[in-house]
Amino acid sequence: MTDKTHDANPSRRQFLAGAAAVGAGAVAGGSASAATPDPLITQVQDWASGLGDGVDATPYGLPIQYESDVVRRNVEWLTADTISSINFTPIHALDGTITPQGCAFERHHSGAIELRKEDYRLMINGLVDTPLVFTYADLERFPRENRIYFCECAANSGMEWAGAQLNGAQFTHGMIHNMEYSGVSLRTLLEEAGVKPEGKWVYVEGADASSNGRSIPLEKAMDDVLVAFKANGEALRKEHGYPVRLVVPGWEGNMWVKWLRRVEVMDQPVESREETSKYTDTLANGVSRKWTWEMDAKSVVTSPSPQAAITHGPGPLVITGLAWSGRGAIAGVDVSLDGGKNWQEARLAAPGTDKALTRFYLDINWDGSEMLLQSRARDTSGYVQPTKAQLREVRGLNSIYHNNAIQTWWVKANGEAENVEVS
Amino acid sequence: MTDKTHDANPSRRQFLAGAAAVGAGAVAGGSASAATPDPLITQVQDWASGLGDGVDATPYGLPIQYESDVVRRNVEWLTADTISSINFTPIHALDGTITPQGCAFERHHSGAIELRKEDYRLMINGLVDTPLVFTYADLERFPRENRIYFCECAANSGMEWAGAQLNGAQFTHGMIHNMEYSGVSLRTLLEEAGVKPEGKWVYVEGADASSNGRSIPLEKAMDDVLVAFKANGEALRKEHGYPVRLVVPGWEGNMWVKWLRRVEVMDQPVESREETSKYTDTLANGVSRKWTWEMDAKSVVTSPSPQAAITHGPGPLVITGLAWSGRGAIAGVDVSLDGGKNWQEARLAAPGTDKALTRFYLDINWDGSEMLLQSRARDTSGYVQPTKAQLREVRGLNSIYHNNAIQTWWVKANGEAENVEVS
Repeated sequence: MTDKTHDANPSRRQFLAGAAAVGAGAVAGGSASAATPDPLITQVQDWASGLGDGVDATPYGLPIQYESDVVRRNVEWLTADTISSINFTPIHALDGTITPQGCAFERHHSGAIELRKEDYRLMINGLVDTPLVFTYADLERFPRENRIYFCECAANSGMEWAGAQLNGAQFTHGMIHNMEYSGVSLRTLLEEAGVKPEGKWVYVEGADASSNGRSIPLEKAMDDVLVAFKANGEALRKEHGYPVRLVVPGWEGNMWVKWLRRVEVMDQPVESREETSKYTDTLANGVSRKWTWEMDAKSVVTSPSPQAAITHGPGPLVITGLAWSGRGAIAGVDVSLDGGKNWQEARLAAPGTDKALTRFYLDINWDGSEMLLQSRARDTSGYVQPTKAQLREVRGLNSIYHNNAIQTWWVKANGEAENVEVS
Repeated sequence: MTDKTHDANPSRRQFLAGAAAVGAGAVAGGSASAATPDPLITQVQDWASGLGDGVDATPYGLPIQYESDVVRRNVEWLTADTISSINFTPIHALDGTITPQGCAFERHHSGAIELRKEDYRLMINGLVDTPLVFTYADLERFPRENRIYFCECAANSGMEWAGAQLNGAQFTHGMIHNMEYSGVSLRTLLEEAGVKPEGKWVYVEGADASSNGRSIPLEKAMDDVLVAFKANGEALRKEHGYPVRLVVPGWEGNMWVKWLRRVEVMDQPVESREETSKYTDTLANGVSRKWTWEMDAKSVVTSPSPQAAITHGPGPLVITGLAWSGRGAIAGVDVSLDGGKNWQEARLAAPGTDKALTRFYLDINWDGSEMLLQSRARDTSGYVQPTKAQLREVRGLNSIYHNNAIQTWWVKANGEAENVEVS
């Protein structure tokens, strides 16, 4: 089925028709009349005649001043204070798949601490042959791995269970980031200590005052979990767990313990606060699901979206967004312009990779009429992202975590967008 | 052939023997006596009892204060001033493959300018059916691509032609970075304007006062060149060409024109200053090679290296570095511990990808004796990185650009390293 009101995948010829006019408009400095010369074209500008900054100006650079709105934001009413709270990645303003550390969302339980490499210790204890304590320098001597993974807070989109609440992809879906991690396989360190046959779980714990701790089945701990010390090539930032955090690919962000100080091998899970009263999912009948570690396949259109309005009239429009799955790679993404009645397959910027963000695009000729924009992810396990109605049918309305439902943006004829629900 | 003095790829059993002692040492806080308890283990520390920063502390974060040495550096004597100069990526301190924009090397010809998106114009003129001028907003309406590519200045390692000069991988090989770019294919824009049959070259030019301009054969311009506006997900930084730069995969960095303002389709190259008196290679007989666009396969050990000494005694040691090729993907990297007499194959962190950095590792049991560390890249075209002697035989000693010779670090028994040449 194809949508009748908006042509998808316009041919080059269609683009030419649309953008030649665009180009002519630009020559005229955005005005309708091509007879008015654009001073940006016809006159020498300051930046083209003066000198700029030298190479000693910024030993470590920050974004240019004009991008000062592309920052993490928190929502004041969401938590009692900002020490135990969360902020959101500005995904509405980003493209590609990598998230710079500087604007990657943070979740702290007792604030971001400062811990020097020299003061760092990692203990492996419990059901092991030889309890070990590693310094940071010790960790650097083990074989390293490098992988790109997404980290999503289980509460991402959690405010949306009961209905459309937050107006912007940053706030509805911004508890996610995607980085290239370098570190040592947890398996390597566990093998170094020697796991006893009765060891079936590990309990991982952070060095901050909250002692954020989670139980992980040994099978996962011996699979793809990393004890990471770099992200996107450089040291972890303070707020991301400097000097060492756990990377638990595909599983909820709370398990990615920051300032990792201890891994205890156990014969059963701890049933800690963070895996009983928190990070469990209360169903309609009052019973709570637990051990809901895997992040289900999910996607969101990042532009256009409420914080990223369409600023031009009808014609070529790039619809783009992100898709991911904790169960494997993204196999495909479908986009609907009419609230889920009709779907068309989006273009993936690159083939999906295991437990990492995938960027998708749908290039259309927008006819200028309103749209109910949705995206639907499919992963390599065959799982398809559900509608909100489908999810509520199974999970009820009590949940906070693991809302991976299809998101709807109502894009109006004036290009502005709003978070809405469709029945 | 294998090296006799250092076992490569130690088995897990060997690692266990090495690191159990390491662990025991750590329990004792680095002292030799395990009887002295480590207060970092036995006592509650400030960071484990107090509160850290809230989620509103850093809307856009910077590296933690302890990493203040991981910054771009310039070399004062290299150029007359810093406006037309270069600085160097701290590759000795990075891992993985992605380079954060904040510490990615800069090369300016008249300084880094500030150019607002609203003031940005890109003209396509010359041998086209319809000359066009695009605003930034226009560019956002064309289909986008996302790719990770390295950008290397042709002068990278240029100071080393005549002998070992600069003591550190940052200075010898740091004119390189590797980012995920998002943008529009130049082909798309050229097709929009319509290239006339007699168009065989494009001349690309920057908006800064230097008007840095280069000629690119049409075949390359229609292949994989991107008109990019994002790097690693976010807007280009000021120093990387905000709002728009050219990405010319695999070709020398000078062609990656920043603040791109014009693409002129021509029937012949311009033979501009930057492709005649500069960015050409003078051979022993005084004749200069030109059009040496492709960056040949190259690699360097980033650690250990002169700025990254070994800080521990004999035992497990991670040797790591970067490899890349402008002709395709890295197929393999060999490492020598004895100045090129014996070679062993390094482990690639991931399969090489087209015109992007590849991270390699060699995990050895270091016996504590001195080493002459080298790495040698091989690419998918079958090309093998040459020795300095091989390169000089062909190119003489007059060259500045395109030194892709094998680099040697003399690692001493005390762990410190020095830039040396081996005959």
